[in-house]
Amino acid sequence: MNQPTEPKADKSGVRRHNLSLVLRTVHEAGETTRAAVAGRVGLTRPAVSSLVEQLLDLGFLVESGKTFSGQAGRPGTVLKPADTGPAGLGVEINIDYVTVCVVDLTGTDRVRRTERLDNRAPTAAEVLDRAARITAEALDEAAERGLDPAGAGLALPGLVTGGTVRQAPNLGWYDVAAERLFGEALAARRPGAGGPAGLALTSDNEANMAALAELWSGTLGDLRTFLHLTGEIGVGGAIVVHGELLRGAHGFAGEIGHVVVDAEGPRCRCGSRGCLEQYAGQAALLGAAGASDVAELVHLAETGEPRALAALAEAGRMLGRALSAAVNLLDPEAVVLGGIFPRLMPWLAPAMAEELAGRVVSGLWTPDAARLRPASPATDAARGAADLVLHDVLADPLAYAGTGTRT
Amino acid sequence: MNQPTEPKADKSGVRRHNLSLVLRTVHEAGETTRAAVAGRVGLTRPAVSSLVEQLLDLGFLVESGKTFSGQAGRPGTVLKPADTGPAGLGVEINIDYVTVCVVDLTGTDRVRRTERLDNRAPTAAEVLDRAARITAEALDEAAERGLDPAGAGLALPGLVTGGTVRQAPNLGWYDVAAERLFGEALAARRPGAGGPAGLALTSDNEANMAALAELWSGTLGDLRTFLHLTGEIGVGGAIVVHGELLRGAHGFAGEIGHVVVDAEGPRCRCGSRGCLEQYAGQAALLGAAGASDVAELVHLAETGEPRALAALAEAGRMLGRALSAAVNLLDPEAVVLGGIFPRLMPWLAPAMAEELAGRVVSGLWTPDAARLRPASPATDAARGAADLVLHDVLADPLAYAGTGTRT
Repeated sequence: MNQPTEPKADKSGVRRHNLSLVLRTVHEAGETTRAAVAGRVGLTRPAVSSLVEQLLDLGFLVESGKTFSGQAGRPGTVLKPADTGPAGLGVEINIDYVTVCVVDLTGTDRVRRTERLDNRAPTAAEVLDRAARITAEALDEAAERGLDPAGAGLALPGLVTGGTVRQAPNLGWYDVAAERLFGEALAARRPGAGGPAGLALTSDNEANMAALAELWSGTLGDLRTFLHLTGEIGVGGAIVVHGELLRGAHGFAGEIGHVVVDAEGPRCRCGSRGCLEQYAGQAALLGAAGASDVAELVHLAETGEPRALAALAEAGRMLGRALSAAVNLLDPEAVVLGGIFPRLMPWLAPAMAEELAGRVVSGLWTPDAARLRPASPATDAARGAADLVLHDVLADPLAYAGTGTRT
Repeated sequence: MNQPTEPKADKSGVRRHNLSLVLRTVHEAGETTRAAVAGRVGLTRPAVSSLVEQLLDLGFLVESGKTFSGQAGRPGTVLKPADTGPAGLGVEINIDYVTVCVVDLTGTDRVRRTERLDNRAPTAAEVLDRAARITAEALDEAAERGLDPAGAGLALPGLVTGGTVRQAPNLGWYDVAAERLFGEALAARRPGAGGPAGLALTSDNEANMAALAELWSGTLGDLRTFLHLTGEIGVGGAIVVHGELLRGAHGFAGEIGHVVVDAEGPRCRCGSRGCLEQYAGQAALLGAAGASDVAELVHLAETGEPRALAALAEAGRMLGRALSAAVNLLDPEAVVLGGIFPRLMPWLAPAMAEELAGRVVSGLWTPDAARLRPASPATDAARGAADLVLHDVLADPLAYAGTGTRT
């Protein structure tokens, strides 16, 4: 009450908010009309038309020639998010691959490059330069398609805070200034773009990014409180509570891969013993099964090879044990398993379900409760990192309306 | 924008909000003046005076004869929360005791009764009737002191949702309608009071209530993200993230007592094996140490009795193991230990700290980081249950201003 408000600034703030509201509504609908948007957001039809005109001018929306007859009112011209212009760029650096993708405003993965390479041998700077090279190639391809990434998200396999990897034991990285090194490497490859190639950078743990991809994919329905595991060389984890990532006091929450499942078990690279990833991480699992890659492991399991079956059953049991601790602590509605796990679910799930049924005190995790879900095939950490950038664009389109105008 | 507002209702809503703001400000300060309140909440002095008059009339505040000279302005009459009138009543039903307390608006525990009794032998209805008897006695004592509890909080040792104990394995309770049974028993003992003795009831897990007591006690300083463990017959747990209880999808989060620390360990009443409470719960610990109660255990440990020392070291190691899983998942700033644990910290803490230092992947849990804290002696689940009621009074005093007016 004592705060004087500047009417102009306030009105502009309301308009910015409403531009976001309209853009998000069209984004979620995929295709819709001005009338349907007005009904959905509770603004008048003229107000929506004015907002839509601005979003068309700025290149966030496009009109399709066809008309669309809704449940009420006269047919209207179809509105869609633009498939050119502002986009999200995601870069996932993992132990044995780098993936870069560019996602447009319609939510489509328009550019995607994955290179399998061992990131453990080179230095952190070399790995980040590799990622910058692949990113530069993806940016060239994006430009050819008329896409203009508004920023880049970096998904990294370790504890990340303030743009720095505090530690990524599987890479041997400690206190690596990943955002800065990546930005410098990208700027060196794109000298004309200015800054870190003109892109705002954001970074997070790859498991958090993968969980965001799943959350925003639309495949989870009403599921808003879940654990997300990603099986890679290590085992990543993320916790989503009521639709928000739980990051903890320092941003290091979710490390289910280092939950101890056998106190006297094998030494882990983190310094502890018997961590989950010593049984269910890709490296440990392939080693125990005597397989050289996941495809071979699946083949061995399908043919009933005893060592492979035993390794998978043991991994499933340990996953179930760690998950029962996590479920007792967090009471999620479901556990979503990504990375290598979806392909292995037929052999992992029985032992997991048995451990959960026996150990979760709420009694809600009976084997028939179907609380173990494979991640959607379209979601990964690179996609989540790109989605995070798009999320910012949708939240305040005017902040990203620098270059791509129609006029 | 499209929502027409009723100016009168809105003004009344603003006044209700401001009454709460002023009352909470005086509550937090303990003693203050109208001028200091005005400076703190950003309202004009006349506006504050009008709100204070109403709170005095309704019996929420009192004036002291003395004057108080602040840092600026002329001395003012001292305002304090009333130590009569609206109060919070807390009822903790645990395995081997019932505690009832009444907390006044100054935050002082004015009535407190604890009866040690075995709640495992009688039926749930009998236990809740016992609690109602103790509560009725506490209400009589509160009335003698001019206190008028605005509601009662029930703290229960199990999974609680919608007023029902879904399960409390240590009591053998499954689907017990605790709020209804307690309310009926209390109404039968206080036939004149109407309803469940005229009290609004609320209920939650005792560990959650104890964590709220700690959170609101003012002893934690800036600590807003922590785990809270309570050592009783079982081991209860609660998770506070950024100052809010994390309840999970169904209200069952925080069950650290059932985190598995040894997959093949002793059978637990929950149906699992090797749960933390099989090592660190009071019953398990006393059994392993050969002590009949906690006082004897402390005495044996102080005199260096080997069996007691071994049991405490084992409990500490298992606490450290379960906590390292919880810390890796949740990344709290600290762990607060209540119930029987504060007295046992000298013998529990070394093994706990060693496990945490070796197993927490962030490296933030070195033994010298002082992240293990005993709970404040003034906080327990009964106190938290009473605080929860007071919290509601402070949030909307008008809703509780039925009876205790000055006029």
